[in-house]
Amino acid sequence: MSQQWLTFLSDYGFEDAFLGVCKGVIARTAPEVRVLDVLHLVAPQDVEQGSAVLASAIPYLPAPAVHLALVDPFRAKPARAVAVRTADGSTFVAPDNGLTAQAWDISGGAVAAHLLDNRELWHPDPARTFRGRDVFSPVAARLAAGLGIELVGTPIDVDELERITVRQPTVEADHVHGEVVQVDHFGNLTLNLQRTHLEQAGMRVGDDVELRCSGKSMVVPFLLTYGKVGRGRLAVCEDSFSTVTIAVNCGSAASRLRAARGEPLVISRTADSGPGPVTLPPEATMMVR
Amino acid sequence: MSQQWLTFLSDYGFEDAFLGVCKGVIARTAPEVRVLDVLHLVAPQDVEQGSAVLASAIPYLPAPAVHLALVDPFRAKPARAVAVRTADGSTFVAPDNGLTAQAWDISGGAVAAHLLDNRELWHPDPARTFRGRDVFSPVAARLAAGLGIELVGTPIDVDELERITVRQPTVEADHVHGEVVQVDHFGNLTLNLQRTHLEQAGMRVGDDVELRCSGKSMVVPFLLTYGKVGRGRLAVCEDSFSTVTIAVNCGSAASRLRAARGEPLVISRTADSGPGPVTLPPEATMMVR
Amino acid sequence: MSQQWLTFLSDYGFEDAFLGVCKGVIARTAPEVRVLDVLHLVAPQDVEQGSAVLASAIPYLPAPAVHLALVDPFRAKPARAVAVRTADGSTFVAPDNGLTAQAWDISGGAVAAHLLDNRELWHPDPARTFRGRDVFSPVAARLAAGLGIELVGTPIDVDELERITVRQPTVEADHVHGEVVQVDHFGNLTLNLQRTHLEQAGMRVGDDVELRCSGKSMVVPFLLTYGKVGRGRLAVCEDSFSTVTIAVNCGSAASRLRAARGEPLVISRTADSGPGPVTLPPEATMMVR
Repeated sequence: MSQQWLTFLSDYGFEDAFLGVCKGVIARTAPEVRVLDVLHLVAPQDVEQGSAVLASAIPYLPAPAVHLALVDPFRAKPARAVAVRTADGSTFVAPDNGLTAQAWDISGGAVAAHLLDNRELWHPDPARTFRGRDVFSPVAARLAAGLGIELVGTPIDVDELERITVRQPTVEADHVHGEVVQVDHFGNLTLNLQRTHLEQAGMRVGDDVELRCSGKSMVVPFLLTYGKVGRGRLAVCEDSFSTVTIAVNCGSAASRLRAARGEPLVISRTADSGPGPVTLPPEATMMVR
Repeated sequence: MSQQWLTFLSDYGFEDAFLGVCKGVIARTAPEVRVLDVLHLVAPQDVEQGSAVLASAIPYLPAPAVHLALVDPFRAKPARAVAVRTADGSTFVAPDNGLTAQAWDISGGAVAAHLLDNRELWHPDPARTFRGRDVFSPVAARLAAGLGIELVGTPIDVDELERITVRQPTVEADHVHGEVVQVDHFGNLTLNLQRTHLEQAGMRVGDDVELRCSGKSMVVPFLLTYGKVGRGRLAVCEDSFSTVTIAVNCGSAASRLRAARGEPLVISRTADSGPGPVTLPPEATMMVR
Repeated sequence: MSQQWLTFLSDYGFEDAFLGVCKGVIARTAPEVRVLDVLHLVAPQDVEQGSAVLASAIPYLPAPAVHLALVDPFRAKPARAVAVRTADGSTFVAPDNGLTAQAWDISGGAVAAHLLDNRELWHPDPARTFRGRDVFSPVAARLAAGLGIELVGTPIDVDELERITVRQPTVEADHVHGEVVQVDHFGNLTLNLQRTHLEQAGMRVGDDVELRCSGKSMVVPFLLTYGKVGRGRLAVCEDSFSTVTIAVNCGSAASRLRAARGEPLVISRTADSGPGPVTLPPEATMMVR
């Protein structure tokens, strides 16, 4: 028999029992389902962060699976509750606010979508302020236990589903404007940049580049595979999810630069930016997880 | 075969391995049992908070189940370790300090109780300062795996079990004295009040009411289903567990009011308090989880 | 069929999806394996803390089991990835930096070791900066699912594996120099001392001893089983893992003494240190978990 995985991402945190009661509802509804926690410390109501984290995690999560994602900020008219089937057979259960749209693309694209408007699957007396517990959790549990997606409610056109606009960097002749997308537990700063953005602005791996951030300016190395930088030294690198990251060897770049999610920054060529990559020793590594 | 659920609430937190070793003991003792975490960030030794959270979570947890609850403050004579059977077939394993008494009532009432004094079920060399690991966890695991409650130790009278006194609000002609019972991850303040308490003091849903808290006074709307308040605005509402809550749309009421658990507050009628409820648009929602 | 347990300790924390993606990889690789979280808030890159916590937890975790331990600080040449079999049939999957060496001894000693250099078991395109996800997790999952250790890679001599030096206390005629090894969730300070160290310096259970720490000096009781000290009072005690601990009844010793992990301290005889133990009432307890 196939495993019945339900992955779970939210902004619920751990200070109260919101997460526990959602897992309780899942266990009551479909005890055979196994829950895999992706992240519950998405910043409160930060749909963009939740979207970016879920998209980067998807290639490493069970597939097909049901992915429950709950980051649902206030709107005068609440986001519709939806289930979205992707080409790989996975199902995303989430508010229709763009939270899971990047992840659909990684799972082969959205191929069907339904509103969660079959109230027979809800808690019989749903609270209006906790749809996570009373609507999303019981429906996701039923889907993970094998319920056909067509039974959760009215079919809708996948082209009508909301998407969020991911802010793109600006690439100029000799510099790139980007921003911090995520700060990890170690204080590394993930940017909205790929390596090719820096290359388009004339920077090459091995160059020293100028980094401007939080009113400071500094010259740091740009390294491909995390180079042999000294303890406590900053570097611009490519991270384990193929995006550009600012890291401090054995330290926190977030603390050093006083930078949080959303912080704008500029990376520029310097006079010393050379013509090509430096040869790095094969064992070079900066921070290992 | 029925699922064998063991829910777990504690004040152990996540900074050390206390929680991990209790789960290790459960896994060693009864590997077939499945653990469901309710909350582990109860404030250290705060039996009242643990009691309130567990009681509100119980209707959403598997039933029947074994509920392990460990918040156990210092006493010159430690609280007795007990297992309490409720009318729905659940079993609460906890110190006899009132921590689970509210939850029994929700589970149909206590029908039997036993001391955990059968030492054959304990760790062979129990530490006196970690009964969670050496007494409560192995006995709870055995119960979840099907052990009869009469085998855990001496039967005791359920009427002798400790209960805690939940502080009740004071309702006057035009105001109510209450206090903050819980601060959630979003900074919402749950009070020791039901909507009827406010109504007894002449306030009606839709009224503006005066809120006094932490030396401040302000006029805020009192809404039934979380009304259409503006971003960043305070409101007195009814929450998803049917109790009165103070919330800020897309913000933290705890930060705004500098209020923590136990903070006293007064909610009063104002000159503008009208005669009846305002009609709210059906889709109105303030904060969705 | 035997349970297939994989215990997991790391310094990954909960702010990002690193932990979630490692669990995702384990679930994809070997869905039948059950993960038991020991601790994920080891201080970043603090191998000594991880080692001490894992060693103290091992007696309470399932055995035999696969123990995945990931605390892996920067080195110019990264620590080798290894699997170490112990006499009790358990397997430790970790960087070869001493993190799991104390735990092997508790599990009967290391009897075989292999490098994780069979790339067929890795992620096909491993990131150099996230071996936890791309090398350690998939290999640990395969081992937990029953793969023979000899298939993970090249055998190596167990005597070549790294060990860390645990700083030992200095015992003088009338005082002991030690340090804080761990601060727990309640603020208790675990020291690198056993009770016998204090006894060698002429202190007896029941004595008042002088404690010097963070530039302060104070006289506190030295108690065997956690004595009947008053609320808010400091004591030197023996903890539930048989090591000497400084605790405050219903309070935080870490806050009181402003002491963190690594803090040196001195415990000395006082003029009042008497000749023998005080008789403690049998029910005496200071802090119960």
